Amino acid sequence: MRKRIALISTGGTIEKTYDELEGVLSNQISTLDVMLARLDLRGIELIRVPLMNKDSLDMTMADHTLIATTAGLMAEAHDGVVIVHGTDRLAESGERIVELVGMPAVPIVLTGAMRPYALRATDALQNLTEAMLSVQLLSAGVYVAMHNRVLRFPGVVKDRSRGTFVRPPAPEEGAEGGRR
Amino acid sequence: MRKRIALISTGGTIEKTYDELEGVLSNQISTLDVMLARLDLRGIELIRVPLMNKDSLDMTMADHTLIATTAGLMAEAHDGVVIVHGTDRLAESGERIVELVGMPAVPIVLTGAMRPYALRATDALQNLTEAMLSVQLLSAGVYVAMHNRVLRFPGVVKDRSRGTFVRPPAPEEGAEGGRR
Amino acid sequence: MRKRIALISTGGTIEKTYDELEGVLSNQISTLDVMLARLDLRGIELIRVPLMNKDSLDMTMADHTLIATTAGLMAEAHDGVVIVHGTDRLAESGERIVELVGMPAVPIVLTGAMRPYALRATDALQNLTEAMLSVQLLSAGVYVAMHNRVLRFPGVVKDRSRGTFVRPPAPEEGAEGGRR
Amino acid sequence: MRKRIALISTGGTIEKTYDELEGVLSNQISTLDVMLARLDLRGIELIRVPLMNKDSLDMTMADHTLIATTAGLMAEAHDGVVIVHGTDRLAESGERIVELVGMPAVPIVLTGAMRPYALRATDALQNLTEAMLSVQLLSAGVYVAMHNRVLRFPGVVKDRSRGTFVRPPAPEEGAEGGRR
Repeated sequence: MRKRIALISTGGTIEKTYDELEGVLSNQISTLDVMLARLDLRGIELIRVPLMNKDSLDMTMADHTLIATTAGLMAEAHDGVVIVHGTDRLAESGERIVELVGMPAVPIVLTGAMRPYALRATDALQNLTEAMLSVQLLSAGVYVAMHNRVLRFPGVVKDRSRGTFVRPPAPEEGAEGGRR
Repeated sequence: MRKRIALISTGGTIEKTYDELEGVLSNQISTLDVMLARLDLRGIELIRVPLMNKDSLDMTMADHTLIATTAGLMAEAHDGVVIVHGTDRLAESGERIVELVGMPAVPIVLTGAMRPYALRATDALQNLTEAMLSVQLLSAGVYVAMHNRVLRFPGVVKDRSRGTFVRPPAPEEGAEGGRR
Repeated sequence: MRKRIALISTGGTIEKTYDELEGVLSNQISTLDVMLARLDLRGIELIRVPLMNKDSLDMTMADHTLIATTAGLMAEAHDGVVIVHGTDRLAESGERIVELVGMPAVPIVLTGAMRPYALRATDALQNLTEAMLSVQLLSAGVYVAMHNRVLRFPGVVKDRSRGTFVRPPAPEEGAEGGRR
Repeated sequence: MRKRIALISTGGTIEKTYDELEGVLSNQISTLDVMLARLDLRGIELIRVPLMNKDSLDMTMADHTLIATTAGLMAEAHDGVVIVHGTDRLAESGERIVELVGMPAVPIVLTGAMRPYALRATDALQNLTEAMLSVQLLSAGVYVAMHNRVLRFPGVVKDRSRGTFVRPPAPEEGAEGGRR
């Protein structure tokens, strides 16, 4: 009865931990399991796919291609796919999925965070919650869910000055065009 | 561009605070503003409608009628309606909206919490996040959004042994029938 | 080199958890280990003595006597004793220790909480931190450490209107008389 | 009746906030007031002295001298002094106080944090709690209170590999020599 959702983790700010001896935030261990344990997930059954654990600034085109190919394969076997991703190059992976997979059979939802879970004021739990719910409600397609907004690829970009994703309207369509 | 959403607050566990001198949890002040301040709400513009602040166990039929009528009025003037409600009698208000309003012009989403925001292990932020996102994605209708699941009225009941809402399938329909 | 401290746990608000199906706070499992794991305790080596897990309102004189006797025995074999206790009858246990043990060889420090650890706004970590530090700094005697204050038995009472402990000055002494 | 304690703030990791657009932790606004609001401080009356807000790695000898002189002046007019300081050069300020002030009339307690308050797993509240309590219990002198341990200057150094302060025993004294 529950929808079966593949959760592909790739790293990013959402999973960063704090190294007190160096005083910096880095990607060393996955905190995704800690976050998932705090959510009450009764609508879905999760299948974990830990693909990589990278700051997305370090991702190469080969990484984006690997993420896109994996997402496409998972979309064939599940009711939906959620991808946890660093925000700096999340849009590149989203576009790559559209290029390589085209229209997937089920919704593929990317999400990430501007402030790591390790921080009190994190947006990680909100964004993960939104991805886990919207993947059940959206029609087939490739999306980012974050900060109380779902935007459809292609055409999503990170607005670095405001720290979130936006979807500038293309000449031939309204901004809402891709969503149900 | 943002959707304009009316947020009707009625009290319930989600807003309970702890009285340290009595050692009990009660509804005295609204913590909804504190919760909203912790979320990054970029998809919606909120119009606050503080209707009442009651433990739903204390609600009368007049209260359910007042909630339903208010929700119906707000649905005519906004892009969606979210209602924060005690879980014990949330289903009664949901059914009352269906009875009095019928099919609203926009989605009306009820939500609540089993564990108050005052607790570390609260489900309040998750459920509020889900209501605030699903109200943008759902078609017109009356729903509860909670614990990673959206269920459509009529026919939703609280499962007291598991502490969540369920929707037993009616003879003539599947459980997924009411959702897009 | 570290001081060896016996930690006697007896229950109380500090360890209460929230029963979401009943909507009440109760003493079912010990959360003391969770709290200890969050503190950086480099000055002491802890020896855990889980004596009982009771709301102190349910304590009998036999319970107070058992706590006092155990504290006296632990004081003979360690560099200090900390007792985690419900605040409602913490003073009764403190007075009972003075009656039965007299002047212990090392400091015995009682502490508790007005707001359980399960709440965001708990005072449990503060009070536990204060007990764990003051037991290293105080001279031999029986004390309560809580809310940024150390008070010496006998003569400490709970001020129920303000939710803390106070030490009304006796005719023959100043309030600071018992502390170093 | 409450002890009057001067609280000198100088910045450091304990007050760092997270810049989500840059992805780094920096000292921009004082979070000390937020931390103080979370503690139940009934033993002391605080007099705030916001002296500077620096990462201690950026402190010059003139800064250490200013901190030491200010601490000495405050010690003449209050029952105790607490200094919030970056840990990297906390020991330099502690030694400078001993050089310039000698034996103060009241306890001067330095503290800091390895993990900022902005992090869930912060040690800031623990250390601040320890400073605020030990300043009431210690005899006159210069100390660091942190991680469940109080150490007396001169002779305290930061152990960078373990992320805390230690006090290697000098040839002519035991490690406990400076404490009551």
